[in-house]
Amino acid sequence: MIIVGERINGTSRRIREAVVSRNAELISDLARRQAEAGADYLDVNAGTDPEREPDDMVWLVQTVQAAVDRPCCIDSPNFESLRAGLRVHRGQALVNSASAEAARLAPTLALAVEYRARLVGLTLDDTGLPKTAAQRVAIATRIGEAAAAARLPLCDLFIDPLARAVAVENDQGAAFLGAVEGIVAALPGGHVICGLSNISFQMPLRPLLNRTFLAMAMARGLDAAILDPLDKSLMATACAGHVLLGQDEMCLGYIQAFRGGRLE
Amino acid sequence: MIIVGERINGTSRRIREAVVSRNAELISDLARRQAEAGADYLDVNAGTDPEREPDDMVWLVQTVQAAVDRPCCIDSPNFESLRAGLRVHRGQALVNSASAEAARLAPTLALAVEYRARLVGLTLDDTGLPKTAAQRVAIATRIGEAAAAARLPLCDLFIDPLARAVAVENDQGAAFLGAVEGIVAALPGGHVICGLSNISFQMPLRPLLNRTFLAMAMARGLDAAILDPLDKSLMATACAGHVLLGQDEMCLGYIQAFRGGRLE
Repeated sequence: MIIVGERINGTSRRIREAVVSRNAELISDLARRQAEAGADYLDVNAGTDPEREPDDMVWLVQTVQAAVDRPCCIDSPNFESLRAGLRVHRGQALVNSASAEAARLAPTLALAVEYRARLVGLTLDDTGLPKTAAQRVAIATRIGEAAAAARLPLCDLFIDPLARAVAVENDQGAAFLGAVEGIVAALPGGHVICGLSNISFQMPLRPLLNRTFLAMAMARGLDAAILDPLDKSLMATACAGHVLLGQDEMCLGYIQAFRGGRLE
Repeated sequence: MIIVGERINGTSRRIREAVVSRNAELISDLARRQAEAGADYLDVNAGTDPEREPDDMVWLVQTVQAAVDRPCCIDSPNFESLRAGLRVHRGQALVNSASAEAARLAPTLALAVEYRARLVGLTLDDTGLPKTAAQRVAIATRIGEAAAAARLPLCDLFIDPLARAVAVENDQGAAFLGAVEGIVAALPGGHVICGLSNISFQMPLRPLLNRTFLAMAMARGLDAAILDPLDKSLMATACAGHVLLGQDEMCLGYIQAFRGGRLE
């Protein structure tokens, strides 16, 4: 499982203020804690106004990479912010995100290829957010074809089938899980990623739903997730999932996590 | 999810002693608590010597059914104990278990059909316990064919693909999950059941592995489990799993369990 730590995200006011005030201590601390908890990538999202966001992204990437030896997941809706972050990034970044929207797919792919970055592709196109598994797989397949045409290696493509709230539409858990399996079959060698927490929107005990959903999605082929690595029970579920899928040789990762007090 | 409560099992000394001493209070209490926690069936296993076990099974079935309005899962390796329990059982029992062993399959099927009971069929034959998913599916298919020949409705057949300890063989989680999916495809309309806890044998934090495994198996098609319904976190996982598979209309079961303090 590839874990993208989600905590440095300017949609939270505390983070946005830290970005604007250049509070390196807060950002570095959050980077370190997430890395220690097992994050493979650190998502960086400035959440600031578009005119200043590229500068903020540069500061975020540099601040995070000064604190920890981890690549960033450079996260912005704005193309110039993605480019600014990639320009100063050390190592192979993950770009978050492209989609199958006509205005977004080709330029974001070209940007990822230019900087030899990996890329998150959302199953979303100009007709909107898909509801069924088949619609998601069809969009993922189009993104995969575009990636191949742009010479982005499939192993650098992470498809996000976009989880939608089960409280609003009861069938969206099953649709998502079906999409994960369909995308794994359609794009062998690629990755399937998701931001978990949308699924439990407006429900009580969201951590219970989130960790159960993570286990279910792993069982269907999800191999990356954007989540809060400081949520111990979620990380423990990922760790147990590795054991149960035979991805943790001799169960050593699990035993080490247990001895280190990281499971609960 | 069909939940079979596993707690009335004579392999535990406390239960075996309660059976021998006819401690109806202890057995009734355990039946009630499991039923209140959501058990659909109550497993009854006397665990006593074969010569007395049929009488003990009669007492167990009658004691449990006097306490709660639930069918029993009549659990014994001994044919005469199964028959004795079925003879006094009210409603449709679940027989635990047949396997594909030549000496066991046909007579146990005939017994289930005679008493219009449902039947657990273990993926085990005279060559022993299978290791791979394909071997399990092949044995399940043979049990399904024998059930059809004996006129046991497929909706009354519960195949148990037999989870084996991941600590001993790292690939057994994946093999089990593959088997669940394969059996669902091979026997549409049938059920897939399992005793969860073997998977985590000799590992630390077994409840974490057990609940993660339950979620994963549900995502691959498991629709019944023999488990401890008094394990709140396991039952909460099953409840969340229903929501996430679209099996809980309007999420009402989940909301009710939450309000009733049954989730954690």
